[in-house]
Amino acid sequence: MSEPDFHISEFEMRLTRIQQAMHSAGLDALLFTTEPEMRYFTGFRTLFWQSPTRPWFLVIPKSGKPIAIIPEIGAALMRTTWIDDIRSWASPHADDDGVTLLVEALKGLNNIGMTMGRESSLRMPYADFKRVTDALSASQFVDATRLVQHLRMVKSEAEIEIIAKICAIASSSFENASNLFSEGQSLSDAFRDFKIDLLKGGADDVPYLVGGAGQGGYADVISPPGETPLKAGDVLMLDTGATYKGYFCDFDRNYAFSHADDKAKNAYDTLYRATEAALVAARPGARCCDIYAAMQMVIAQAGSDVGRYGHGLGIQLTESPSFISFDKTVLQAGMVMTLEPSMQIEDGKIMVHEENILIQDGAPRLLSRRAAPELPIL
Amino acid sequence: MSEPDFHISEFEMRLTRIQQAMHSAGLDALLFTTEPEMRYFTGFRTLFWQSPTRPWFLVIPKSGKPIAIIPEIGAALMRTTWIDDIRSWASPHADDDGVTLLVEALKGLNNIGMTMGRESSLRMPYADFKRVTDALSASQFVDATRLVQHLRMVKSEAEIEIIAKICAIASSSFENASNLFSEGQSLSDAFRDFKIDLLKGGADDVPYLVGGAGQGGYADVISPPGETPLKAGDVLMLDTGATYKGYFCDFDRNYAFSHADDKAKNAYDTLYRATEAALVAARPGARCCDIYAAMQMVIAQAGSDVGRYGHGLGIQLTESPSFISFDKTVLQAGMVMTLEPSMQIEDGKIMVHEENILIQDGAPRLLSRRAAPELPIL
Repeated sequence: MSEPDFHISEFEMRLTRIQQAMHSAGLDALLFTTEPEMRYFTGFRTLFWQSPTRPWFLVIPKSGKPIAIIPEIGAALMRTTWIDDIRSWASPHADDDGVTLLVEALKGLNNIGMTMGRESSLRMPYADFKRVTDALSASQFVDATRLVQHLRMVKSEAEIEIIAKICAIASSSFENASNLFSEGQSLSDAFRDFKIDLLKGGADDVPYLVGGAGQGGYADVISPPGETPLKAGDVLMLDTGATYKGYFCDFDRNYAFSHADDKAKNAYDTLYRATEAALVAARPGARCCDIYAAMQMVIAQAGSDVGRYGHGLGIQLTESPSFISFDKTVLQAGMVMTLEPSMQIEDGKIMVHEENILIQDGAPRLLSRRAAPELPIL
Repeated sequence: MSEPDFHISEFEMRLTRIQQAMHSAGLDALLFTTEPEMRYFTGFRTLFWQSPTRPWFLVIPKSGKPIAIIPEIGAALMRTTWIDDIRSWASPHADDDGVTLLVEALKGLNNIGMTMGRESSLRMPYADFKRVTDALSASQFVDATRLVQHLRMVKSEAEIEIIAKICAIASSSFENASNLFSEGQSLSDAFRDFKIDLLKGGADDVPYLVGGAGQGGYADVISPPGETPLKAGDVLMLDTGATYKGYFCDFDRNYAFSHADDKAKNAYDTLYRATEAALVAARPGARCCDIYAAMQMVIAQAGSDVGRYGHGLGIQLTESPSFISFDKTVLQAGMVMTLEPSMQIEDGKIMVHEENILIQDGAPRLLSRRAAPELPIL
């Protein structure tokens, strides 16, 4: 088994803070079904969530330590965390996959908070959730999304250290571009070689690697790579969410092969200046929509306009809050954010630039090593 | 962009079959929120689902082609699939993340099927799902889990070819064990080197790699690797879900270093014989619980008893059905399954063995190259 990712004091601090927020909100308990929250409050980290077969539950009471209600297969690993109260059952079960245990844990409570809002999902069978709420008809299930997001969006020193490390690993791989990428290579091979370089550099995993390549820009940034060979005049973009101890980096880099047309160079310059504007604006006390506006002003001058220009980063590739017009979340020291302006170069051709930063007193700290100010030519 | 993973005829066949099943069940539409179903019916494949920010919806009407209701960021990629009716919106949205579009698509329908049962989840904010069902109060939302699972569990020739390929890639990496794993190496480095070998061998990704190591057996099979060096007498197990074109393999291998104690050798032998028994029993027409019983008979003789001894395999690491006492699903030609017997060696020490097979007329086809009949000593 691996060493715990954090000292117990980290989890005690998280619990103290969430229980303070629960007290203010009048919540008797929080119920979680999803991996990020399970890991955040317990330290339970496993890739086993890839299997959709079994549900996992975490209950945080208004006082006292969290209660893990989990399949037996996870009990040994859970016992290595700071959690004492572990209730497990043989899962999959013919007709009661944790429902009775969950109902017992929540019985008699009035207000039970869950993440029901933006960016959330219900990772248990909906039919079983109905059984739970029917059995607890005297209880109110209320939305606690913002409460949980507000806690998670401010990172501790220990979390920042981990995110900084995976950002440094990815920065080194990106700086190795001239050894990794070349004309004639398929995009698929470019991705493969980049992933291997990240692993060799110390990344635990590369759950997210997307990108594109095309003459003077790319059509799309979420596709898997194809077999078309890279050629002169192509702009190649790779956007990676590699992980270390279960925390993500999330940034991209653009490269041109042999030469680049003016439109591509200008788009790169615009996006670079947009991130410069964001680096000036991103201070504790500023609102997310203000940072969005700072980037949008630069991009609108170039005649483009796309959606979201960045987001929180941590246990998940994308977390709350967002740099978008309607997000009024106030930045605080300790938030880890991406700056991700994008623009249309022409119909069907876009460019994206991304950096990872830590909000702190004064100028933000760049966690990704800053991209070159001009489009690099390989 | 990459080439489509399948010919259009594959999707036409899937649609025909699901609409036949919908007709029998009296369903007017199916609504999906999850990646595997979106990909199964459209061919839309992207790692972008790593981001929890945006909901994605697929509606399958009782006649006619599927309707994709998706964030704008996915529209370009969706247009490369066989889907014509793509309705998109700028997401994230301040207050309507696809809800209105989804309600419009479902309005006036009586019976709307969803996956609400075993192994399912609701990948959209629960609060938004409530808005949808409130707006469609005249509609019935009914459970269609088994209907969808029964379709997906029988693989086409094209799917089998892909799964066979990733199984072959993983088999080669496992057979490379003596070059990859050695005494003194940390488990963490063993995992890293194995992942790199899988990527070099042609795997697109390694979303799942778990395992363990310890004297004569291991405590746990879902933990991330630690830094403890491998040593003589250790049994090392790696269990990998690597992917190719978005389909998983899922099997493991055990190795001992320098020597193994009799308990470990005997456990290996028991598990090997359990899979032999399963290979004899796994025929079209047999029930999953029968295959479970065949394995359990061998394992019970050795005095152990654990939960599930295998499962379906495909787009997901684990799929329906299960080799477990209560699953009466009848095996059909074309099902791809894992055989995964496990047993306790002694308190806190277990062993797991896993193979991937295709159910077909006569004996099953091994997709993983058969493990050695005796515990390999490196």
